[in-house]
Amino acid sequence: MAESNLSFILNKPLSLSFEERPKPTLKSPQDVLIAINYTGICGSDVHYWQHGAIGPFVVKDPMVLGHESAGTVVEVGPAVKTLKVGDRIAIEPGTPCRHCTPCLAGHYNLCDDMRFAATPPYDGTLAGFYTAPADFCYKLPEHVSLQEGALVEPLAVGVHIVKQAEIKPGASVVVMGAGPVGLLCCAVAKAFGASTIVAVDIQPARLEFAASFAATHTFMPERVSAEVNAARLLKESGLIGGADAIIDASGAEPSIQTSIHALRRGGVYVQGGMGKPDINFPIMALCTKEITAKGSFRYGSGDYKLAVELVATGKVDVKKLITGTVKFEDAEKAFQDVKAGKGIKVLIAGPNEK
Amino acid sequence: MAESNLSFILNKPLSLSFEERPKPTLKSPQDVLIAINYTGICGSDVHYWQHGAIGPFVVKDPMVLGHESAGTVVEVGPAVKTLKVGDRIAIEPGTPCRHCTPCLAGHYNLCDDMRFAATPPYDGTLAGFYTAPADFCYKLPEHVSLQEGALVEPLAVGVHIVKQAEIKPGASVVVMGAGPVGLLCCAVAKAFGASTIVAVDIQPARLEFAASFAATHTFMPERVSAEVNAARLLKESGLIGGADAIIDASGAEPSIQTSIHALRRGGVYVQGGMGKPDINFPIMALCTKEITAKGSFRYGSGDYKLAVELVATGKVDVKKLITGTVKFEDAEKAFQDVKAGKGIKVLIAGPNEK
Amino acid sequence: MAESNLSFILNKPLSLSFEERPKPTLKSPQDVLIAINYTGICGSDVHYWQHGAIGPFVVKDPMVLGHESAGTVVEVGPAVKTLKVGDRIAIEPGTPCRHCTPCLAGHYNLCDDMRFAATPPYDGTLAGFYTAPADFCYKLPEHVSLQEGALVEPLAVGVHIVKQAEIKPGASVVVMGAGPVGLLCCAVAKAFGASTIVAVDIQPARLEFAASFAATHTFMPERVSAEVNAARLLKESGLIGGADAIIDASGAEPSIQTSIHALRRGGVYVQGGMGKPDINFPIMALCTKEITAKGSFRYGSGDYKLAVELVATGKVDVKKLITGTVKFEDAEKAFQDVKAGKGIKVLIAGPNEK
Amino acid sequence: MAESNLSFILNKPLSLSFEERPKPTLKSPQDVLIAINYTGICGSDVHYWQHGAIGPFVVKDPMVLGHESAGTVVEVGPAVKTLKVGDRIAIEPGTPCRHCTPCLAGHYNLCDDMRFAATPPYDGTLAGFYTAPADFCYKLPEHVSLQEGALVEPLAVGVHIVKQAEIKPGASVVVMGAGPVGLLCCAVAKAFGASTIVAVDIQPARLEFAASFAATHTFMPERVSAEVNAARLLKESGLIGGADAIIDASGAEPSIQTSIHALRRGGVYVQGGMGKPDINFPIMALCTKEITAKGSFRYGSGDYKLAVELVATGKVDVKKLITGTVKFEDAEKAFQDVKAGKGIKVLIAGPNEK
Repeated sequence: MAESNLSFILNKPLSLSFEERPKPTLKSPQDVLIAINYTGICGSDVHYWQHGAIGPFVVKDPMVLGHESAGTVVEVGPAVKTLKVGDRIAIEPGTPCRHCTPCLAGHYNLCDDMRFAATPPYDGTLAGFYTAPADFCYKLPEHVSLQEGALVEPLAVGVHIVKQAEIKPGASVVVMGAGPVGLLCCAVAKAFGASTIVAVDIQPARLEFAASFAATHTFMPERVSAEVNAARLLKESGLIGGADAIIDASGAEPSIQTSIHALRRGGVYVQGGMGKPDINFPIMALCTKEITAKGSFRYGSGDYKLAVELVATGKVDVKKLITGTVKFEDAEKAFQDVKAGKGIKVLIAGPNEK
Repeated sequence: MAESNLSFILNKPLSLSFEERPKPTLKSPQDVLIAINYTGICGSDVHYWQHGAIGPFVVKDPMVLGHESAGTVVEVGPAVKTLKVGDRIAIEPGTPCRHCTPCLAGHYNLCDDMRFAATPPYDGTLAGFYTAPADFCYKLPEHVSLQEGALVEPLAVGVHIVKQAEIKPGASVVVMGAGPVGLLCCAVAKAFGASTIVAVDIQPARLEFAASFAATHTFMPERVSAEVNAARLLKESGLIGGADAIIDASGAEPSIQTSIHALRRGGVYVQGGMGKPDINFPIMALCTKEITAKGSFRYGSGDYKLAVELVATGKVDVKKLITGTVKFEDAEKAFQDVKAGKGIKVLIAGPNEK
Repeated sequence: MAESNLSFILNKPLSLSFEERPKPTLKSPQDVLIAINYTGICGSDVHYWQHGAIGPFVVKDPMVLGHESAGTVVEVGPAVKTLKVGDRIAIEPGTPCRHCTPCLAGHYNLCDDMRFAATPPYDGTLAGFYTAPADFCYKLPEHVSLQEGALVEPLAVGVHIVKQAEIKPGASVVVMGAGPVGLLCCAVAKAFGASTIVAVDIQPARLEFAASFAATHTFMPERVSAEVNAARLLKESGLIGGADAIIDASGAEPSIQTSIHALRRGGVYVQGGMGKPDINFPIMALCTKEITAKGSFRYGSGDYKLAVELVATGKVDVKKLITGTVKFEDAEKAFQDVKAGKGIKVLIAGPNEK
Repeated sequence: MAESNLSFILNKPLSLSFEERPKPTLKSPQDVLIAINYTGICGSDVHYWQHGAIGPFVVKDPMVLGHESAGTVVEVGPAVKTLKVGDRIAIEPGTPCRHCTPCLAGHYNLCDDMRFAATPPYDGTLAGFYTAPADFCYKLPEHVSLQEGALVEPLAVGVHIVKQAEIKPGASVVVMGAGPVGLLCCAVAKAFGASTIVAVDIQPARLEFAASFAATHTFMPERVSAEVNAARLLKESGLIGGADAIIDASGAEPSIQTSIHALRRGGVYVQGGMGKPDINFPIMALCTKEITAKGSFRYGSGDYKLAVELVATGKVDVKKLITGTVKFEDAEKAFQDVKAGKGIKVLIAGPNEK
């Protein structure tokens, strides 16, 4: 295999470059060295490129972008028992400290000291090679491609959101926003046995795709009050009394407001999408309907494993979301396309990928 | 015992009157007839008096006020096995339909067809007599007074809120608002084993009382940002990393905002207080900290039983909250005092109480 | 429709007879009168027939048998809003008191005063007509047959068992016993997203059917120790470290022992099958592996609704279990066949069914 | 401080000796070196001494005994932020791998590769010095003594058991066995808000102590059937309908059988005590009453922290259980006393303790 560790680097807002960096070495006996095969582009990558920061995370030094990757194991540490050279894997891009209270309690996504790929100051996976602890690398079955492997990351985001939504067989769920994460939430909700899945978006094309992918119903909101949109959504979806669970994968204020009004008493709301830090929220409806509203942040224990399995069993066909694969050298062009809203999920091949 | 069924009636906003009504009769073989001994005044009673409505509930016809009552059983239906004439009881003022999905699922406080005392169109308990199903009447032990029995209702509200907050032994909890419900939430949290209980209010006298009643710490917010108040609250209470649970018993927008910023990652927020229907809410903090925000509405399965027990075992000394008891004829005066913020909890004796 | 209320009656052990009984009338305004179309035979029916008792439940007076029924609404009480004459329904055969602590807590299957069809002293559904409260009758969609409707009862048993087993998407589950309930547990586990479903039985034909119906693996135990059977079961099913959940639908002592040894640390065991009251149990394995062992009794809140939906959506094809339908007059012959172990599920047509 | 690392060693069954071993050194930057002050004796230490094995754990090479210890930090690794030299700590004696599925899921007590003090082949804490990761060392407040600190280990066992028992405020709980763990379970149940706590033992003196320590009721079983003992226990404790939770801290077969019969429908049973691997168990009662039976193994996330707090707040007065403290040189004599059943909890001072 070629040995380039060419890396795609964000130097500062709007400034990208390619750089041949030294090949990384194992940091611990439980690490593996991975040759990156494919990497998807996430909205956060684009946001760092455009603004150089997300909330408290500010890019101060040049940082390798990318965190949605699949690769091939090329070296294993002496303590690694679960993987061998040549294994094809999906990479969970965050490594927790394993010592803080959330880590010991099984909520490592809430770790006080998480090292997450392409979240400053940590380098990402858009490079030739990357190291990760073996227990955060998930072997792909023979029949699952490395391109599908790169989609495991956004799928794991959807798995975590749907778990937070406590979706049970027979449940009704509404998903606000039909972008990659929203679409994957629809598919995971279906795999969890939801019987009514309403995809909501303002773009007809996205709703059409959602219906073909996993949604049982679609809804396009109008410029009316949240209460009116909620009532119409429920009527058109046959959800008398409200939905069991509603997931926001849009971050849009009107969607969040509509969600609370469209939930049944005792229903569950999950904030999966990122948007404005503060919005106008129907807090008294939450109180009197005893709604449970939860955040969902990245993914945690068991999510990646289940995501790989949903792909392997065909319960979620992530291939349908891959709208293109570009050479590593064309990474910036791919970022521009994502920024322009072209396609659903674009993959960037690793620099050693022929 | 005297036989008057004198009732205290809200005719329309700001119009109260007394009326001798016919003594009620048992509606079902499982009902009991109760002579009312004492009734507390709730903010909702005052709100109906002043505005004639709370949200969707509008007073269209004259309605008897009151729902925080203790009484004495004077007649039992043929199917009643758990109570006998002469039993002193706390009355749970809502009767669910027992047939809808929430009822069958054990969430009768979310019943589709609840009949709740002094929530239009249902008459309340500020009268000589009242009927209720035996399973919604809770016998008071000998050593618990009927005045304490009237306090079981607001205490049950606190029990339900604290259960919603998932407070476990050793937990840290912040309670926003030191009115009757906030104070009772502090006391219930203590009974649930919370080790840090921070009472928050803008009135020093209320904070002083809270400290003497159940709080381990008190905090008075300043006219600064929610983030700044949150940081100071945590620092002054020794809560590094945030509180495990925060209960809002104030309904005040700044308190709600401060709560979300003062919670630890993975913490629980409960909306217990009523206020503006919509407020500016830090939704992204909820998302990235994976906070669970819940509403709490009235009380449900087991709450009243536990409330009676907390009083009986002395774990919550509700007597300290009783700042006065007036004759039935002075009910309107008592309402005026509550409206003026005088005292903590004022009781109205039943018309047959000598 | 014909008006016969011919009833199939157990007079005393081994003594069955047919009797034309008066057509029942509505007991409450929330009841409906149902013309019975089809009824399945349950092991308990056969057990009462043979022994006249199950545990504490003793047949003292003649009792109508049968409780797995679907029927057609012929009369509705004045308070019924959810059903109308002509509706085709699955009948949940137990009516709880709605007033005891388990009922109010949402666990009505644990009701202190349950009235359950064909559990002495309550008559069953093998008759022309039956009354039930509307909220315990579940409307069948157009495309679901009344024969399928009769299978909803055992399917609901499976739904409750699988819920008790806390089966999540991706889980591995072992089901001991491939009779009707075991088979339905396999199918429900599949609908709940289990990825490995091991059916265990001592009859090859049953295992073959299980594999064709819902199991991913089958296992036939040998006359060896529970530990050895457990180790072989796990090895042959590729379950390294043990199964996530194991359901016993056999009641057989060796199966129960094997289950505990085949569970992973932290796994869940559910006792679904009835057998000897006391058995030799590996309690220290339960202790050191922190296994959770639960009973499952009948069905509770939401189980029947979900069972109907699993049939309606085709997720569970109960038709495959129906091995015959006999005329009402041939009920005793059908009981003999079930006792002889012939077929999987035999239905008895109602006396008015042509 | 003296520098002896004198160690108390089990060479083989019944063969104990003292040996001056080299002072241990830090294994990782997150470790601390601890001078042992006090160590309690656990039944498992005595069992290894007498039989050289517990289940699959066999003493093959000489092993230092002891795992219930408190000590003083004498050296901290470069990555340690939470402790400093001189801190007085309770030591959690098991170190999990932090990489297996149970560890990542927050159940590290079920770790596939646990290193537990005085469980072969790992040395224990009956020595001058011991090393542990900082996150498994819990600082003791000023007012908590090091002798109390040594009791945190058995208290944490009780905390974990009571958590498994899902004991909520107002609950009724029965604890079988009034040895150290049973007594601590009573005290923890009280701290969790249980209102009825029945201690069960066959020794009157132990019951007397239990009543003075934490139990509200005591019960001495007779040589009658489990059903009869269960019925009498409930009657004498005023538990109509059964107990909410029952904890077995005895491992005795009759206690386990009585427990299942004494539980209410839907109650929780926890196996905390060790005894015969297989016992005769009323499995059908578990099934029809929908009992949840769980094992409890050591302690997990948050248990040690809560145990320290229960001591610090005075909610559990562990001092009452300390019936003696001996010099390190008298360790074998102390083991003989424990074997003979003398006292409740005997502590052994560290070799450098003056």
